[in-house]
Amino acid sequence: MTDLLNALREIVGEQGVLQGEAVRSRQSSYWHRQPMQAQAILRPATVAELSACLRLCHAAGQPVIPLGGNTGLAEATASTAEHMMLSLERMQRIEEVDEAGRSMTVEAGAILQTVHERAVESGLLFPVDLGARGSCTIGGMMATNAGGFSVLRYGMMRERVLGLEAVLADGTVISSLGGYLKNNTGYDLKQLFIGSEGTLGVITRAVLRLEELPTARTCAMIAVRDFTQVTALLKHLDRAANGALCALEVMWSEFFSLNTGVHSAHRSPFAEVWPFYLLVEWQGCDENDLRERFEQALAVAFDEDLLTDAVIAQSLNEREALWAIREASEPEELFFDRTQGFDVSLAIRDMEVFVCRLKVDLAELDERATLLVFGHLADGNLHLTVGLHESGPSHAEVERVVYTCVQAFAGAVSAEHGIGLEKKAWLPISRQPAELDLMRLLKRTLDPRGILNPGKIFDL
Amino acid sequence: MTDLLNALREIVGEQGVLQGEAVRSRQSSYWHRQPMQAQAILRPATVAELSACLRLCHAAGQPVIPLGGNTGLAEATASTAEHMMLSLERMQRIEEVDEAGRSMTVEAGAILQTVHERAVESGLLFPVDLGARGSCTIGGMMATNAGGFSVLRYGMMRERVLGLEAVLADGTVISSLGGYLKNNTGYDLKQLFIGSEGTLGVITRAVLRLEELPTARTCAMIAVRDFTQVTALLKHLDRAANGALCALEVMWSEFFSLNTGVHSAHRSPFAEVWPFYLLVEWQGCDENDLRERFEQALAVAFDEDLLTDAVIAQSLNEREALWAIREASEPEELFFDRTQGFDVSLAIRDMEVFVCRLKVDLAELDERATLLVFGHLADGNLHLTVGLHESGPSHAEVERVVYTCVQAFAGAVSAEHGIGLEKKAWLPISRQPAELDLMRLLKRTLDPRGILNPGKIFDL
Repeated sequence: MTDLLNALREIVGEQGVLQGEAVRSRQSSYWHRQPMQAQAILRPATVAELSACLRLCHAAGQPVIPLGGNTGLAEATASTAEHMMLSLERMQRIEEVDEAGRSMTVEAGAILQTVHERAVESGLLFPVDLGARGSCTIGGMMATNAGGFSVLRYGMMRERVLGLEAVLADGTVISSLGGYLKNNTGYDLKQLFIGSEGTLGVITRAVLRLEELPTARTCAMIAVRDFTQVTALLKHLDRAANGALCALEVMWSEFFSLNTGVHSAHRSPFAEVWPFYLLVEWQGCDENDLRERFEQALAVAFDEDLLTDAVIAQSLNEREALWAIREASEPEELFFDRTQGFDVSLAIRDMEVFVCRLKVDLAELDERATLLVFGHLADGNLHLTVGLHESGPSHAEVERVVYTCVQAFAGAVSAEHGIGLEKKAWLPISRQPAELDLMRLLKRTLDPRGILNPGKIFDL
Repeated sequence: MTDLLNALREIVGEQGVLQGEAVRSRQSSYWHRQPMQAQAILRPATVAELSACLRLCHAAGQPVIPLGGNTGLAEATASTAEHMMLSLERMQRIEEVDEAGRSMTVEAGAILQTVHERAVESGLLFPVDLGARGSCTIGGMMATNAGGFSVLRYGMMRERVLGLEAVLADGTVISSLGGYLKNNTGYDLKQLFIGSEGTLGVITRAVLRLEELPTARTCAMIAVRDFTQVTALLKHLDRAANGALCALEVMWSEFFSLNTGVHSAHRSPFAEVWPFYLLVEWQGCDENDLRERFEQALAVAFDEDLLTDAVIAQSLNEREALWAIREASEPEELFFDRTQGFDVSLAIRDMEVFVCRLKVDLAELDERATLLVFGHLADGNLHLTVGLHESGPSHAEVERVVYTCVQAFAGAVSAEHGIGLEKKAWLPISRQPAELDLMRLLKRTLDPRGILNPGKIFDL
């Protein structure tokens, strides 16, 4: 192993290898504060260096774990002392912005926030956004097909990548950087790497699709009496928005009440308690026009009995106060001894019954367990939090109850976080044996020695 | 071979096998009126039958060509007397429309127009649209990743498929029908089949993503002085439309003049001749609001010198008259002895210079050759037609000149039509050797005996 490390050091230089305390001083993952474990962190500065590193590791059968911002939520970069981490942190360049083509070419280590800021300088928007924006990298976001706040309007990461460059396990560089919106020249190879969590190749560069920058936004919190109103309102508001609808978040009553209750710094804008609350946002470029159309759409919804009450944010501060209700996490931490989070997709029409049934199943497991639900409704994505108290059921028991219910509704065990190690055992709930066999076939074909992020997503 | 055919007949029944005149009475492809050649056309009625057919063909090493509506433009279903055609024409069912989830589950043989009509019945839109809508099938559109009129707003076929079912060469059914907008449960296998032109599997079912149905549209023909105005106008109109921009077609002067000249039934709405013409359309649900915003956006564009003249359609008839200029093909047929069409992508900022250079190169080849250009500008997609007279250069010579120029600008030799047989020789212009090697590796892995649409896209 020392021979290999020396050879790798020859490629990337002293600056390109971290060992010992420099490795242990990093956190193992977003959820776990233990020291990172690895033989070394390799930090190539160019795709040529990265390719040369992989070629050596491939020859030596050395397992390699690609590393972005390490903010993933599914333990997809979990490592042991035998692993070699392959970090993109020295490949962060923004290479070009094409204003007419509305695209940006970046190295995969570029930080999301840097990409946002560079786009804005050109009057453009890179629309994928999420909480970890200050740390997460474009490469990690591609590898996990990140979702976030604006999927409804702008799609997930997969829809924002016009082209990419990736390095296969054996060091072969696949350069598919033709950054065109339309490109039907043979197989769309970039799709293989997006969302495969670093198991099929290491993404090193990308051409990202940008949009014109919206400069106005308007937002409302809406109280709703029943789920029929929720689904009707989704359709009405999407129709009225005509492309401007950026967020339609639904909060079940328990979630909303906890986040506006005594354990929270935030207050409900409504005097009464309702079964569902929707946070809706439109974005655009003409403040007055956007606002006027939004108010009219809400007025029509009220007249047609699609909503019960609504509060429109009158200022940026009020908007932030509404979003804070949806984003607050402190109340959970204060109220429960521990929580377990889930990220599932299911059919919108099944959501209400799914949540009811899951409540019943959880109550059977532990009558003190609380189910908190919010979701990106229009995306079919619900985030579930199970709040637990000491001496409650085990992590595994809660998982079993939740995923059994997801399975009963033919849901997906991950909408946007991915599988990694965390959900590997549950993947067969959402994918059929023939699908898993085909995934394994692809893995064995592209990475015959199994060196790239081994053991993640599925076992061979 | 007779043994195989008998065994296949056992599976699909008498109705499921066409031979002899029933095969020859069909046209070989959209471009060629010769009789179709094949041993037989197999017409399974279920995925189980289709799978059983492929299992037998795989065992026998029998080449199979999947067949949709046979309206493709790249000879991807070209066949010889040895081939077995596998038609989806008896698998046309629309299985379900989920109004809340805004999706539709269909068998792959469903005709596009039927899908359009069924969506409209539910107040929804299936937004991929193209000229062959009365014949082309959803399966063929997925296999070729069809584009069409509304890519700018709604994406290509790839973006409209939430889930699919496909059958591998050996008969294995891959059912990835979890029709969620967000689904990060392992590799996104459907991407393998979309756009692979029937070489990796036969798509048998799909869950399609629908949208709220726009009920209003507004449209203008715009005259523009130079290409700087064109690119600035694209950005301005997209920004002002805020999601409502559905089409932005650009026509170079020669194309527009031919289509509004003496050989045409259509007339220019302008008194003068301009270098570029743009056809712009917004769609939405509120007629008055849409119209008002559109007019205001054009007024601002005029004030800011982004356009020279503009005519807004005042009625549906006027709209159709404007679109007819862009869609007319009779003038080409009348004016030239023959024409050659191309479908390329390139960077928007390069388009003007590309067209100039190509004109020069074509003039060197044949001074009577005429280059006609229009394109889906915002998609980066230009459609080129070279108009030729008798005793002009050969088909191959024209291809060489056009694709050499595309290569010089790092363009894609197909934006939306695909490669098939027609562009196979030119694929290496747009894709690198390592990419082609990876495509071949995928092909050999998924179809080890090479029975699925052999020889299309690339040679092994």
